[in-house]
Amino acid sequence: MVPALLTDLYELTMVDAYLAEGLHEEAAFSLFVRRLPARRNFLMACGLEQALTYLETLRFSPGELAWLESLGRFSRQLIDWLEHFHFSGDVHAVPEGTPVFGQEPLLEVVAPLPEAQLVETYLINQVHLQTLAASKAARVVEAARGRPVVDFGVRRMHGEDAGLKVARAAHVAGVSATSNLQAAQRYGIPVAGTLAHSYIQAHDDELAAFRAYVHRFPETTLLVDTYDTLEGVRKVVALARELGPDFRVQAVRLDSGDLASLAHQTRALLDAAGLERVRIFASGGLDEDEVARLLSHQAPIDAFGVGTAMGVSEDAPALDMAYKLVEYAGRGRLKLSPGKVLLPGRKQVFREERDGVAFRDVLACHDEVLPGRPLLRQVMHAGRRLEGASPPLAALRMHAREELTRLPLEVRGLEPARPPHPVDVSPALSAAKEQVVTGLRERLAAH
Amino acid sequence: MVPALLTDLYELTMVDAYLAEGLHEEAAFSLFVRRLPARRNFLMACGLEQALTYLETLRFSPGELAWLESLGRFSRQLIDWLEHFHFSGDVHAVPEGTPVFGQEPLLEVVAPLPEAQLVETYLINQVHLQTLAASKAARVVEAARGRPVVDFGVRRMHGEDAGLKVARAAHVAGVSATSNLQAAQRYGIPVAGTLAHSYIQAHDDELAAFRAYVHRFPETTLLVDTYDTLEGVRKVVALARELGPDFRVQAVRLDSGDLASLAHQTRALLDAAGLERVRIFASGGLDEDEVARLLSHQAPIDAFGVGTAMGVSEDAPALDMAYKLVEYAGRGRLKLSPGKVLLPGRKQVFREERDGVAFRDVLACHDEVLPGRPLLRQVMHAGRRLEGASPPLAALRMHAREELTRLPLEVRGLEPARPPHPVDVSPALSAAKEQVVTGLRERLAAH
Repeated sequence: MVPALLTDLYELTMVDAYLAEGLHEEAAFSLFVRRLPARRNFLMACGLEQALTYLETLRFSPGELAWLESLGRFSRQLIDWLEHFHFSGDVHAVPEGTPVFGQEPLLEVVAPLPEAQLVETYLINQVHLQTLAASKAARVVEAARGRPVVDFGVRRMHGEDAGLKVARAAHVAGVSATSNLQAAQRYGIPVAGTLAHSYIQAHDDELAAFRAYVHRFPETTLLVDTYDTLEGVRKVVALARELGPDFRVQAVRLDSGDLASLAHQTRALLDAAGLERVRIFASGGLDEDEVARLLSHQAPIDAFGVGTAMGVSEDAPALDMAYKLVEYAGRGRLKLSPGKVLLPGRKQVFREERDGVAFRDVLACHDEVLPGRPLLRQVMHAGRRLEGASPPLAALRMHAREELTRLPLEVRGLEPARPPHPVDVSPALSAAKEQVVTGLRERLAAH
Repeated sequence: MVPALLTDLYELTMVDAYLAEGLHEEAAFSLFVRRLPARRNFLMACGLEQALTYLETLRFSPGELAWLESLGRFSRQLIDWLEHFHFSGDVHAVPEGTPVFGQEPLLEVVAPLPEAQLVETYLINQVHLQTLAASKAARVVEAARGRPVVDFGVRRMHGEDAGLKVARAAHVAGVSATSNLQAAQRYGIPVAGTLAHSYIQAHDDELAAFRAYVHRFPETTLLVDTYDTLEGVRKVVALARELGPDFRVQAVRLDSGDLASLAHQTRALLDAAGLERVRIFASGGLDEDEVARLLSHQAPIDAFGVGTAMGVSEDAPALDMAYKLVEYAGRGRLKLSPGKVLLPGRKQVFREERDGVAFRDVLACHDEVLPGRPLLRQVMHAGRRLEGASPPLAALRMHAREELTRLPLEVRGLEPARPPHPVDVSPALSAAKEQVVTGLRERLAAH
């Protein structure tokens, strides 16, 4: 059950006032990110699945209604309306895994005003989190240049729900596996793990620890940095000699120190012992920059475990995401607050490509037909999701990979693209904006 | 029910190996933050309540066990053990709301090794989130110099659980109210809110919107920046004239633009209209630095709504928090990984004070008695929380306030304290560390 009360108080007070005033004509709200974070060339839309589930299943329980009533703030009319609430609107959205840019709608809700208003907080909460996470993970995956990346971040993600949803979003963005069992169970993401320092520490001797672990998990990855990384690798070599053909360890894991240098030395030790097939797994405070730096030093690392920095999107832990009224009762709406200017009306985004590679996006009115590929599709009608609105995770993941190959290399890269990917506004949308602004200024001047 | 599968795969593989090897003697794990984030002078411990609830209630359901078994990775012995699992250990912890520094244990778990290991991921996940959130919120509250701070962050917090727990932690740290209804219901936090731009936009006219809203919510706060802030304030003044004694609006809310200058001009407009009692509420991209800057410009702001930056701890969205084995089978344990060196054994922290103000902390062995106030207390015995381990939120909040007044002003401040608050290591703990290191080096050299 979705948490109906996970919302801002003001959503309910506004709905209460809308109901009192009879403001229940059709509204369109647009969910978008105003500006990209510094050093980001694109974002990856994610979280639509959870948004649709919320819209389909949002109900207020008797207990929740009784509590709301007990606050003494709301009208009987609002409580009655909430009691019978179910979302009856339409949703148009960009598929999960699609790269998007500033000002581009990730989704648009078209519904009677009180319904469309009520769902604001939760929709942002969920789409923000997964878009944030997929966008960061896509950078780490890009930096790893085809090597597997494993999500190790659950312990420092922001709570239980982030633990689940960030793992999902990262997988959509190309992360291979997660260490989080709950995410593996819920979403069918491959699960991966090695062992912890505490296991080594609990044994009197590192080699004894390796021996015991391998006895139980022969094809494991051994963590070698508890005391001295290269000594640890030598113990792995000793274990290989001891076990002979029974030695089936897949990899060693380096988790601290100068990973580039240690990886080179580890590779040399393993190769000299005839253990060419034992791979090197690196972890420990990694982010996309560190992964890129390691690979630029030709560090012989075969896979990466990335935790905190990816799990919390450390360089940009929030997006400037908003859910804004753009149309009510058939008229475009906007506001003029400095730095927060809106484009009115429902939109479409056309991505123009040349030889299969995008060279600009055009923000347009929803009913325009322009060159390029339209990114927004209808995914819900009258409160029910449409066929094909919820592809399986594997399909989203493939879609994300395919979409990334359609971005220019510079836009996919870690450094700021110069110039950034252009997002233009269609002449019709510009004209619509001017018209609304003029109307607003006239009304403002009239008072 | 706590999510038993919200854990890293390796916790289960390690437990599996421990069981196979009969490693079930008593272990002590210490949960601490290695280093403070840049620009932070202290952290505020939080999240113990959720940690204790987890330890008391963690059980594996038949469905979870069946799924784990289906992975084909685990022994029958592990599945059986999980089926009968309940935590039987002790916990010693720093009360929620207590300022802590790098290397200081927030909590220590003492239990048979497999039990203490199993709970690692979730304990970090929860204590990390709330400590992160309380630490950031304490800075915002400090910056506001006694003016109320309202949490507006739920929409951009990382998911559902963060929405709840960050609101709780911020309240412990001194934030007055939250906009999040679920957090208000769950924890009894006061709830607050104003209205949104969409409400204004949905009306043809801003004054008409104010009039309608005030009709329904007479004592509200009116949002004045949708089109032009000072014009918005003039409409509030017009409404006051129109309503006469029925005008009961509490405040106006500024949400964009140059807040310092707008606040001064807004105050002047309100005062000139005899509306001295109407207060000014500021929001819009605030953090502790911006709040401090506004007040240093004598901006006449009476309360602050703080959202994203506080909700995600934007300048430091993660802490270098670890849960490390420090003792097993009666012997201190550590590791020597670069940058991750441990102090062995169970600990106590003594906070030394002069005239009621702390001047240094001393990290000591758990059974030492040294000058100063011991911060860690036993809160759980044999898997059951002790009387007094879970004070009500109001008491935690008061404790936090009281503890903050016991820090030097410079340490409470927003800028880095020079020198930072000293955290020394007792001679006995230093000696214990040397002893363990020497033993390790001897064993390493012997191979």
